Formats: sequence, structure tokens, C-alpha cells
Amino acid sequence: MMRVQQEKFEVRTNGKGTYEITDQVQDKIDKSGVRNGVVTIFVQHTSCSLTMMENAAPAARRDVERFFEQLVPEDADYEHDDEGPDDMPSHIRMVLTRTNESVPIVDGKMELGTWQGLFLFEHRRDTHRRKVSATIIGE
Amino acid sequence: MMRVQQEKFEVRTNGKGTYEITDQVQDKIDKSGVRNGVVTIFVQHTSCSLTMMENAAPAARRDVERFFEQLVPEDADYEHDDEGPDDMPSHIRMVLTRTNESVPIVDGKMELGTWQGLFLFEHRRDTHRRKVSATIIGE
Amino acid sequence: MMRVQQEKFEVRTNGKGTYEITDQVQDKIDKSGVRNGVVTIFVQHTSCSLTMMENAAPAARRDVERFFEQLVPEDADYEHDDEGPDDMPSHIRMVLTRTNESVPIVDGKMELGTWQGLFLFEHRRDTHRRKVSATIIGE
Repeated sequence: MMRVQQEKFEVRTNGKGTYEITDQVQDKIDKSGVRNGVVTIFVQHTSCSLTMMENAAPAARRDVERFFEQLVPEDADYEHDDEGPDDMPSHIRMVLTRTNESVPIVDGKMELGTWQGLFLFEHRRDTHRRKVSATIIGE
Repeated sequence: MMRVQQEKFEVRTNGKGTYEITDQVQDKIDKSGVRNGVVTIFVQHTSCSLTMMENAAPAARRDVERFFEQLVPEDADYEHDDEGPDDMPSHIRMVLTRTNESVPIVDGKMELGTWQGLFLFEHRRDTHRRKVSATIIGE
Repeated sequence: MMRVQQEKFEVRTNGKGTYEITDQVQDKIDKSGVRNGVVTIFVQHTSCSLTMMENAAPAARRDVERFFEQLVPEDADYEHDDEGPDDMPSHIRMVLTRTNESVPIVDGKMELGTWQGLFLFEHRRDTHRRKVSATIIGE
């Protein structure tokens, strides 16, 4: 029987970086009882984003973070600069990554590869409570 | 009762830039009567794309557009250059952003954060009529 | 009658580049019998990705590939470098593109524009068998 279930959770971030949320999302799927379908994860912000990433090597994640620091530097000449030097780069990094990810659910589990983890990518320096939702559609 | 509803609309673009389509998508959701689910927005083109973006500060959108002008310049040495200098950059900018966005629908509304808007990102200089579809799945 | 159908297939890759998978995905939709809905395509890897791209001009695809070679070079100074010079760039290129694409299904066909094709974007030099899944939700 097809149905939709929607859940929310918060992620506390403590400055720029990648924060794994795979377990929180799987927990919502477990609660829903859905065995086969798709979960759509969505962040309600424009200064953080979502990405899949290698879940085993923290050095790989640091390289990703460093790459974005260089590609979208804080010290470029932005027109929109009244919310601090990390504000405008945060929006651009969000545009270059994702606000939503959709992941298949098979036999009650997200169908991730061995090395895949789902991460919230925080682009601001300050601490934040980020709102994330998981919409589960399936049977 | 779960169902699927599909709607189309056109966006007239008048050169490079970001064009907000949040209201058009919400209008299609309103018509569908779906209260909870997901809307998948899709553009049928390879020279424009979709992105979430800050909806309040036009200067922030201009900074995003400027960033992409510099990251993917028109005057680079492209092999595929027979459709004008803005053609090949348009495909690369599309690859760097998105062709589809999936947004949760909660109580009949897209579950956007306060500052989130959905934008069509036009990468070509000429005027265009862009085909966008909204597929609403829910109950 | 709404339902979910999940299919898997493999894509053999022979070095860096874009490999069209539009037909394989359409084949899974044909088998499912779903006429209207959404297909979510997902790759179970962090060193290849998905993207829509121009399907007619191979030169355009080569320009995209060259752009990523320059934007995320193999010879940058990566901290995570024990799996070869193409490993860390592969993760960054994945982060800049997509792990999943969701495409509307209308009258049994993916609702692609004339020039749109769906591609697996391989970022590693060696041959690989890439696992791709298609989750079809609709009626």
C-alpha cells in the first residue's frame, strides 16, 4: 500500500564542514515502516547544502572542503557583503551542491554503496541549527 | 489516496539570469489538491537549469551570476563553438547546477525555508521560452 | 493504481568520460508498465556521478570533460592521495555533479527535451562496473 510519510530533524553545526546525517535519515525510514520507495531529503536553507560523499576517509572530506574554500573564496569582491565574508560564498557553494537528495529505499534500507554517506555541508562559520526534512514515499 | 499529477508551464527568459518560478510551481500544487508529498520540477533543456537561491536580495543573485560568468567564461577555447560564444558555457553551467529539483509538499505548500526561492537559471543571451514541468506525487 | 518498481543495471566504463544511459533507463520504465510518474536514477558510488547533457554533439561532451579536468586537476596538492592521482578529483567532481537524477515519466516515456540525454559521468581512469538503480513511482 503506497503512502507518504514526512519527518523533520535538526542538525547542529559548529562551523564550516561536512556533517554526516545518514543515520538520522535511516532512523526516519525505520520509523515509517516503508520497505521500498524513495526518500527525499531537503534542507530549508540557502547557506548550507547536501551532498553524498566518501564516508570512510576524513581526509577526503577535508580535501572537498578545501577545494570549495579555494573555488569560492571569502575574500572575493562580492556585491552582497553585509552579512559577513562567509555569507555570499555560502550561497554560491549551495548552488554548486544540492538542496535535496533522493535516495532509493530497498528492503527498508537506503540503497547506498559501501562508501557512500549523506552529509549536510555547512558553509557558515557560526553555530547553526539546520532544519532537514525526510519525505518517504513507498510501500 | 496517493496519486500523481503532472503539469507544464513556460518561462519566458530575456537573457542570462535567474528567474523565480516559486509561485508558478505552488500554483500547480494548489490546483492538484495534493496536501502531502513531493513535487519534482524539471526543465527540458540543456542550456538553462534550476537552482534554489536566496529570494530576498537581488544583489546575492547577481553575485551568483557573476561567479558563473567567471568560472565558465565565454571566451575560453571550446571545441564546440558553432552555436555562439554563450552556447558551450551554458551546457557547463547546467551540469554544475540542476535539471530537476524535488521539494516536499506539506499541508499543500512547498516546504521552503524563509529565504528559499526556486529559480530557473537562464544561461543563454537570447530570449527563450523554457519548458518546465511539475510532477506532484502525494495524497 | 500507484506503485513502486525498482530495477538495477550495470554500466561498464572504460576510463574517464560520459556514458549515455538514457536507453537503459527507458527500458526499465517500459518493463515496469508505469505510464505517469517519476523515475529516480541513483549511482552507488562516490567516484562517478550522473548528469544530463547535450546528446547530439560529442564535442560538447568533450568540452564538459575538459572543463572538469581543469577545474579539478589531478596534480593539485590533495591530502587524500593514497588511491592514485585520479581518486580525490573523482570525489570532488561527484560533489559538483549529481548522485541522483529524477525525471518525469509521461505516457510511459521519460519527458526529456529534444537534446537531453542522461549520462553516467565516470571520473576514474581504470575500467569499472558501475551499479545504477532506477526506482519508478507512478501509475
